[in-house]
Amino acid sequence: MKYEFPVTKTTAPKTKPDAKGLRFGTVFTDHMFVMDYNEKDGWNNGRIVPYGPITLDPAAVVLHYGQEMFEGLKAYKTAAGRVQLFRPDMNAKRTNNTNDRLCIPKVDEELFVDAIKALVKIDQDWIPEGEGTALYIRPFIFGDEAFLGVRKSATYKFMIILSPVGPYFENGLAPTKMYVEDVYVRAVKGGTGEAKCGGNYGGSLKAQEIAHEKGFEQILWLDAYEQKYIEEIGAANAFFVIGDEIVTSALNGSILPGITRNSIIALCKKKGYKISERKISIDELENAYHAGQLKEMFASGTAAIVSPVGELLYKGEDMVINDNKIGPVAQEMYDTIYGIQTGKMDDFMGWTVPVE
Amino acid sequence: MKYEFPVTKTTAPKTKPDAKGLRFGTVFTDHMFVMDYNEKDGWNNGRIVPYGPITLDPAAVVLHYGQEMFEGLKAYKTAAGRVQLFRPDMNAKRTNNTNDRLCIPKVDEELFVDAIKALVKIDQDWIPEGEGTALYIRPFIFGDEAFLGVRKSATYKFMIILSPVGPYFENGLAPTKMYVEDVYVRAVKGGTGEAKCGGNYGGSLKAQEIAHEKGFEQILWLDAYEQKYIEEIGAANAFFVIGDEIVTSALNGSILPGITRNSIIALCKKKGYKISERKISIDELENAYHAGQLKEMFASGTAAIVSPVGELLYKGEDMVINDNKIGPVAQEMYDTIYGIQTGKMDDFMGWTVPVE
Ligand SMILES: Cc1ncc(COP(=O)(O)O)c(C=O)c1O
Ligand SMILES: Cc1ncc(COP(=O)(O)O)c(C=O)c1O
Repeated sequence: MKYEFPVTKTTAPKTKPDAKGLRFGTVFTDHMFVMDYNEKDGWNNGRIVPYGPITLDPAAVVLHYGQEMFEGLKAYKTAAGRVQLFRPDMNAKRTNNTNDRLCIPKVDEELFVDAIKALVKIDQDWIPEGEGTALYIRPFIFGDEAFLGVRKSATYKFMIILSPVGPYFENGLAPTKMYVEDVYVRAVKGGTGEAKCGGNYGGSLKAQEIAHEKGFEQILWLDAYEQKYIEEIGAANAFFVIGDEIVTSALNGSILPGITRNSIIALCKKKGYKISERKISIDELENAYHAGQLKEMFASGTAAIVSPVGELLYKGEDMVINDNKIGPVAQEMYDTIYGIQTGKMDDFMGWTVPVE
Repeated sequence: MKYEFPVTKTTAPKTKPDAKGLRFGTVFTDHMFVMDYNEKDGWNNGRIVPYGPITLDPAAVVLHYGQEMFEGLKAYKTAAGRVQLFRPDMNAKRTNNTNDRLCIPKVDEELFVDAIKALVKIDQDWIPEGEGTALYIRPFIFGDEAFLGVRKSATYKFMIILSPVGPYFENGLAPTKMYVEDVYVRAVKGGTGEAKCGGNYGGSLKAQEIAHEKGFEQILWLDAYEQKYIEEIGAANAFFVIGDEIVTSALNGSILPGITRNSIIALCKKKGYKISERKISIDELENAYHAGQLKEMFASGTAAIVSPVGELLYKGEDMVINDNKIGPVAQEMYDTIYGIQTGKMDDFMGWTVPVE
C-alpha cells in the first residue's frame, strides 16, 4: 500500500449481527474512513475513526444542492481466509468520472483503493459468512461548505462506511415482477445519468413507489426522448437473452456504466458467447417474446450481482419470461462472479484484489 | 397564526454584518427552525433554537441519495417598520409539489408559513436596510434515516435558516453575458426539473463552471430533446421582449415554476401588456435579433428579482441586446416587484403578508 492512515480504534465495539436474517444496509461496522478537502491543502487528513455521527452546518452544500456522489462494492472472505475486493479500481475510476460531472475534486485512485483496504482490514471480522452475504463498502463524497447560492463547494468530505449485508432482494435469486415506467424517466443525455450522484436516486423514488404500490418489485426505465428504448432496471443494468444473442443497452450518456455489467460483458466475450451492446426497444422485446425468442431477462449490479426478471408488464400484457425461473445465462453469470468474489472459483479474470 | 412553536433563545447573539458589502448567503442569523418527521407521529416537535450545527449519521439518506428539497423567499422591512413576506403561500405550495415528486411527506401549508413568520419575527433585527438587500429565507427538508439502499427515508428534518443578503449579482442590475449551453441539459420531462430538489443544482454546476471559465456569467438552458427550445437561465426563468410581445417559456414539465415568473406574468396581464407563455426557440431569438425585434431579455428569480441579459453568445455570434442596457420592461418589473416587497409602492396585487 502506498497510502497509510492514522487509526483511532473504537473503545465500544458493537455486537456483530447474526449472518442469518441480515438485511441490506442497516447495520454498520465499528469504524469509518474520513478525509477532508479544502482549496489550499487539497485532500488531506485521511483517517480511520470510530463509526459515529458527523456534524454539518445547516447551510452545508450537500443539504441543499445535492453536490454528492457515492460508490458501492463488496469485500468477501474466502474459505482460505483471504479477504478480497472485487475490481475496486473500477469504482475508483467511476468516482472520478462522477466527480468530474459534479465539480467535486478528483481523488487519487490509488488512495481511494488504499483507504478501502485499510478500513476493511480493521473491520474484517465484520465480513459475514453465508450464501449471498458480504461486507458492503460505501465510499461517498459531499460538499460541506456553509453557504447558499448555486456554485460548487470549496470544502468536501470523503468518507467510507461498511455494512455487513445479506441478499439485496429478500427472495435471493427468485425472479422479480417488473413494471415498464412510461411517465417518469431516470436520466437524459447531457444530464447526470452516467454519474453516481445522489440526485439520480432521489428522483427515482417516485416511480419505484408507484410500481411497489401496484405490486411490482422493479421498474424498467425507458429513454427520455421517445420512452421506447430500454435504459436500466431500477438501480441496475439490463440484460436480455434473445435467441442466442445476449444483449445489453449500449452506454449512451444516460446509463450508469455498471461494473457488474462490464464484468458480464467481459465474461461473455471470454466464453465466446454472442454479446451485443446496442439499442434495444421495448417493441423489440415484445416481438421477441411473441416469437418465443425472449429467453431471459435480468438486472446486473453490485448489490444482487444478477437478479432475474420473471414477469414484465407492458401495455396491459403480462409477459412471463422463462417460466418465471432463473435462466442459464443469469445463473452462470451469478455463479461465476459470485464464485470469483468468494474464492470458490479460480479468479481466471484477475479481478480480485487482496486486503493484506 | 394558527401554529406556535417553542423558542430557545441564543445566549450568544452574533454581531450583525454591515449592510454594505453583504454577499449572498454567507452570513446566518441567530436562530433556526427545526421540525422532525417519523412515520408514527408525522411532522412533530417544531421548534426555534439557536442557529448551530446539526448531527447526522454518516448513512443518512440525504448524504447518499439526494432526497432533499429547498425553497427560497425574502423578508423586507418597510419604511413604516412593517416586516413583510412576499407570497409565502406560493413557496408552501411549491414545497408540496416538490415533496410529492421526491416522496417527501407533505407539510401543512399554513404551518410552513407560520414557521417562517415565527422565525423571521425573532430575528427581524437582522433584516438589512439598503437598496437590493433583504433577509433571505431558506426552508429545506431532507431525509435523515440511516440506511443504504434505494427507498424513501422513514424520517425527515424540516428546517428554516435566514441570511441577510445583498444583491445576488455583484453588479446589481447591470446586464450579464450569457452562454447558450449545448452539451449539458438541466432537466427533461418525466425527471425532476419542475421540483426544487438538490439534484437539479448539483447537476447544473458543471455547465455553469465551463461558462464562467469562458467569461460568461450565466447559461441559457435548452430543452433536452432537440437543444432547440429555451428552458431557463441559470437558476432563474427566462423572459424576452420581441417586438411588442413579452414571452416566457411555457411550463412544460422540465421548467421550474418560478414565483417571480408567475408575478411578472400577473403584472403584465394587469397592466394590459401582451404576454405569452409559449415555446420559444433559440432560432426564433436569433431571427428576431437580426430583424431588430429582440428588444429585451432577462432572467427572473427570488434572488435578483430581475437580471437583464446584455450579451448572448450563440454559434459564435455575439448578440448585443438593448445596447447592453437594462430595458424598460425589465426595469418596470423590477421597480414594481421590489417596490411592493419593500412597501415603497402600494401592494395593488395583495402579495405581501405581514409578520406580526
Ligand atoms: C443506476 C444504477 N445502474 C446500474 C448500477 C449497477 O452498477 P454496478 O454493477 O457497478 O453496481 C448501479 C449501481 O449499483 C446503479 O445505481
Ligand atoms: C431552477 C430555477 N428556476 C427558476 C427559479 C426562479 O424561481 P423563483 O422566482 O420562485 O425564485 C429558481 C429559483 O430561484 C430556480 O432555482
